[in-house]
Amino acid sequence: MVISLRKARTIIRKALEKGREMELKPLSVVVLDAGGHVIAFEREDGAAPGRFAIAHGKAYGSVMLGMAGTAQMQRAEGQAYFMAAVNGVYGGQVVPVPGGVLVRDRKGAVIGAVGVTGDTSDNDAQAALVGIEGAGLVGEI
Amino acid sequence: MVISLRKARTIIRKALEKGREMELKPLSVVVLDAGGHVIAFEREDGAAPGRFAIAHGKAYGSVMLGMAGTAQMQRAEGQAYFMAAVNGVYGGQVVPVPGGVLVRDRKGAVIGAVGVTGDTSDNDAQAALVGIEGAGLVGEI
Amino acid sequence: MVISLRKARTIIRKALEKGREMELKPLSVVVLDAGGHVIAFEREDGAAPGRFAIAHGKAYGSVMLGMAGTAQMQRAEGQAYFMAAVNGVYGGQVVPVPGGVLVRDRKGAVIGAVGVTGDTSDNDAQAALVGIEGAGLVGEI
Amino acid sequence: MVISLRKARTIIRKALEKGREMELKPLSVVVLDAGGHVIAFEREDGAAPGRFAIAHGKAYGSVMLGMAGTAQMQRAEGQAYFMAAVNGVYGGQVVPVPGGVLVRDRKGAVIGAVGVTGDTSDNDAQAALVGIEGAGLVGEI
Repeated sequence: MVISLRKARTIIRKALEKGREMELKPLSVVVLDAGGHVIAFEREDGAAPGRFAIAHGKAYGSVMLGMAGTAQMQRAEGQAYFMAAVNGVYGGQVVPVPGGVLVRDRKGAVIGAVGVTGDTSDNDAQAALVGIEGAGLVGEI
Repeated sequence: MVISLRKARTIIRKALEKGREMELKPLSVVVLDAGGHVIAFEREDGAAPGRFAIAHGKAYGSVMLGMAGTAQMQRAEGQAYFMAAVNGVYGGQVVPVPGGVLVRDRKGAVIGAVGVTGDTSDNDAQAALVGIEGAGLVGEI
Repeated sequence: MVISLRKARTIIRKALEKGREMELKPLSVVVLDAGGHVIAFEREDGAAPGRFAIAHGKAYGSVMLGMAGTAQMQRAEGQAYFMAAVNGVYGGQVVPVPGGVLVRDRKGAVIGAVGVTGDTSDNDAQAALVGIEGAGLVGEI
Repeated sequence: MVISLRKARTIIRKALEKGREMELKPLSVVVLDAGGHVIAFEREDGAAPGRFAIAHGKAYGSVMLGMAGTAQMQRAEGQAYFMAAVNGVYGGQVVPVPGGVLVRDRKGAVIGAVGVTGDTSDNDAQAALVGIEGAGLVGEI
């Protein structure tokens, strides 16, 4: 199973709606496929210009390691040099904090990841999760 | 004047509609702001996974140089080492062919760029232009 | 459909057998998935140490662009600066010559690529194709 | 003495068998030669896509420094900036944790390294060691 562009749009729309409902700062949302490649991205008006790279880094590390943002953060806090080294081998493309959320199909296979940035990491993750579930998929924060 | 997320969505939607109307291969479309930063991106189902980087490279060079894809291509054909050097200073992020289209406001100021990839470079540029004009903006191929 | 490790081993084994049958120089063979990530690789005894990167570059460009080695070579010969720019956006990871072979499932979808290096580009491509077909898959040189 | 492709295959096969026997998560195994160059690699079905880079980073640092993963980890824990600097000079290619295992011939000379990733670092190292010994070679965790 793959994330279609239609599903990716739904994820983004519902994550942004959740952000507005929670009155979060402007959000940016990226959806990656199972190989870590961008399907779709949107940055809300008023967000800082560099938000693509942050959203991407949260989602990219999740896909490449098969480990969502919360687990990456725990590893980074316990063994900082390991996540630094991981970032080296992935070309500096990993941002190991919540807001990187794995997307699984109904059998549990990873089919991609969503990265949200703009508010606190926990709020970012919450918006991502709502977007994923709104598209009928399963998220892992 | 800036390209709002709403305008960026319109550009992408209309460019993709044009691609379907022309029966082009699956397209990928990115919209960058006046600083060369991503506002929105979509990759159609069936497109190759690496299309974000190509679309981005077409639009990024356009914004950074203030020169659309056609002009960049002419420069690359006449003076290949110059465009190679430009790519050096921009970290290899420039793809100097049609499909990178400047977006101007009604006074002529560059407010961003659109990058389209997937079909021939000329068809990519045509879809981008239709998208930009469909959002009430002026494009320069 | 994905290329399983079992299928990848078959591709490599049969490509290497073909190389020995054709009395080619020592070959190196990589199999990538649909996201351009390594599933399996083998370098025959006597091959030069740097062969992983060449095999990988042939297969990686094929997956990322959705364009096999022969088509990439034609584009590079007709528009050298374009393939140079493509290499920039893909971090210098593309080797645009035959020996990068797309793998398609029976419906025509790209599910990965094989990269072979060691002999002439045409012989490399031939060995790759035999390996892919030996695993019951369809190759595009 | 060099690690032949035949020996490398044995190392990988026996490491993966050990992983299945210990009921570990899907493993990825790379075998490098005495120059730090890839001889063979396999990624089990179900492993995350980015596992090549992690396996490679564990083995690469081992060969380049002549220091196995456990010793690298001790150095990283005692002097983090040193391992960060080492990663700078090696292009970010070093992952200094267990699972990078030196391979020695019977006289004690380093002839390559094995990198395993997928489960805990200690289990990764255990599987690597069993693979190396199964090929009649001596491993240093």
